[in-house]
Amino acid sequence: MKTLHIIKIGGNVIDNSENLHRFLQDFTALEGLKILVHGGGKVATQVSESMGVEAHMIDGRRITDIDTLRIVTMVYGGLINKNIVAQLQRYGTNALGVTGADGDLIRAKKRPVKTIDYGFAGDIFEDSVRSSNIAKLLDAGFIPVFCALTHNGEGQLLNTNADTIASALAVALCEFYETTLVYCFEKKGVLMDINDDDSLIRDIDPVRYEEFKKEQIIHSGMLPKMDNAFTAIACGVKAVIIGHSADLGKLKSDSSFGTRLSK
Amino acid sequence: MKTLHIIKIGGNVIDNSENLHRFLQDFTALEGLKILVHGGGKVATQVSESMGVEAHMIDGRRITDIDTLRIVTMVYGGLINKNIVAQLQRYGTNALGVTGADGDLIRAKKRPVKTIDYGFAGDIFEDSVRSSNIAKLLDAGFIPVFCALTHNGEGQLLNTNADTIASALAVALCEFYETTLVYCFEKKGVLMDINDDDSLIRDIDPVRYEEFKKEQIIHSGMLPKMDNAFTAIACGVKAVIIGHSADLGKLKSDSSFGTRLSK
Repeated sequence: MKTLHIIKIGGNVIDNSENLHRFLQDFTALEGLKILVHGGGKVATQVSESMGVEAHMIDGRRITDIDTLRIVTMVYGGLINKNIVAQLQRYGTNALGVTGADGDLIRAKKRPVKTIDYGFAGDIFEDSVRSSNIAKLLDAGFIPVFCALTHNGEGQLLNTNADTIASALAVALCEFYETTLVYCFEKKGVLMDINDDDSLIRDIDPVRYEEFKKEQIIHSGMLPKMDNAFTAIACGVKAVIIGHSADLGKLKSDSSFGTRLSK
Repeated sequence: MKTLHIIKIGGNVIDNSENLHRFLQDFTALEGLKILVHGGGKVATQVSESMGVEAHMIDGRRITDIDTLRIVTMVYGGLINKNIVAQLQRYGTNALGVTGADGDLIRAKKRPVKTIDYGFAGDIFEDSVRSSNIAKLLDAGFIPVFCALTHNGEGQLLNTNADTIASALAVALCEFYETTLVYCFEKKGVLMDINDDDSLIRDIDPVRYEEFKKEQIIHSGMLPKMDNAFTAIACGVKAVIIGHSADLGKLKSDSSFGTRLSK
C-alpha cells in the first residue's frame, strides 16, 4: 500500500506570509502522496468587515448565515485556496484546489436545528468522502488542496470544520492508502507543561493517553483534538502527528516531529 | 477520436438564476465529454462596490489592480465557480471547478506595460494549456468548470478573458479530441439584421464570412468573436457555434443551434 499524508493547516500559518511560504516549500519537499487541508484565517474576518457583514454568534459559536456562507465561499474557496494553489505550483507541487462539491469529493448534511440554528454548517457523515474520486486525482498526479467547504449533493454549499474534513479524509482513504494525519498548529505538539515548549511529549498510545487524562496532564483544550485523533487511529489511520507548522520539514519516512499518536 | 464540447457562458446567464438553472440542466443533458468556461457577472461589481473598491478604467478598459485581482479571485474562483459546481452536482454532472493555476492547467503571461498598465491581466501564449493534465481529468470522469483566472507559474494569479480561455482550450485539446467550441450569449446567433431575431444565419464558412464582411452584413461588434472563431477552426477546431444560452438543449450529435462556423 502506498503511503499518504493528509496535512491540515490553520489560520496561524495562513495569516503570516513568511510562515506560509516556508510551510508550502516544506510541503513540496515531503515525498509521496499528500493532501493539504486549510482552514480560514483573519482574512475572512477582514473581508466580512469590509463588506459590513457582522459575525453572528450564539452562545459563543459562529453561525453560518447566508451572508457568511457567501463570504466563506469567496474567501476559503477563492482567495485563500487559489493563492495557496498558485504558490504550490510555483514551488513545483501540482496542486489542485477543491471544495467538497468539486468532483463530489465530500458531502455533508446541514446541521439539524435543535436549540441553535447553525445555518449553513455541514456535518460529515459515514459515507461523506468519495474516496475513489480522490484516489483518481492522486493517481493522475494531482495534489488536492481542500478548503473548509462541502456540499449536500442538492446544490447547497456548506461550511465544515477543516479539522473534521482532514480526519474524515484520513479515515476514508485508509481503503486505498496507508494514511498519516498531520495537524499543524502554533505549538510544538502536546506539552506536559503548556508554558514549557521543551516539555514536548513525543509519542502517545491509547494506554498512555488514558493515564495522561487521569493525571490531568493534557491541557483541556487539546482533549477534543486528541479524542478525534484516537478515533481516527481506531478507524485505521496509521498515525496522527500534532506539531508546529514550522517543523513539517523534519517529517521524513524515517523521522517524525511534534507528538506522534499511534496504536 | 472522442468528441469534446467546450461551452462558454457569460454574465447574462450567470446573473439570472432561472436562466442559469435551465442552462446547467441542458449542459448536464449534453452527451459526451464537455468543459464549461464561465465569465463574471454583475456579482463581481456588487462585491467590489460593497467593499469600496472602485473599478479602475483607462481609455474605457478595465484595469486589474491588486484589489480588483483579490475580488475576481474571490468572486470568479470562489462564489460563482463553486456555486455552479454545486448546482451541476445536484443535476448529476460530476463537475470540478478550476482556475488555470489548479493542476497547472492554463498558464498566462502578465500583459507587458506599453502605453497602458493593465495590472494583473494575463495573456494566453502558444503553450499556455497543459492539455495532457486536462485529458487526465476528463479521462477520470470529471467535468472541468473553468473560471477566468490563470497563473504565471511563479505564484501569480492573473485575470484572463473567458472567451480567450475557451478558444485556447478548444485549440489545445484538438490534440486529444474532436473539439467543438460553443459560445452562449444573449442573441440567437449571428444575425443578418441585428434587430431581427428571425434573420439568423445558420452556417458560415470562411468564404461566406469574407463575403459578409465585404457587404458589411455582419455587425462590427461580432467581428472580433468571429475572427477568433475562424482562427480556432484554422487551428483544428471542428466547429464553433455561437447561439443563445437558452437553446443549448437543441445541441445533439445530429443537430445544432445558433450559427455554426466551420471549414
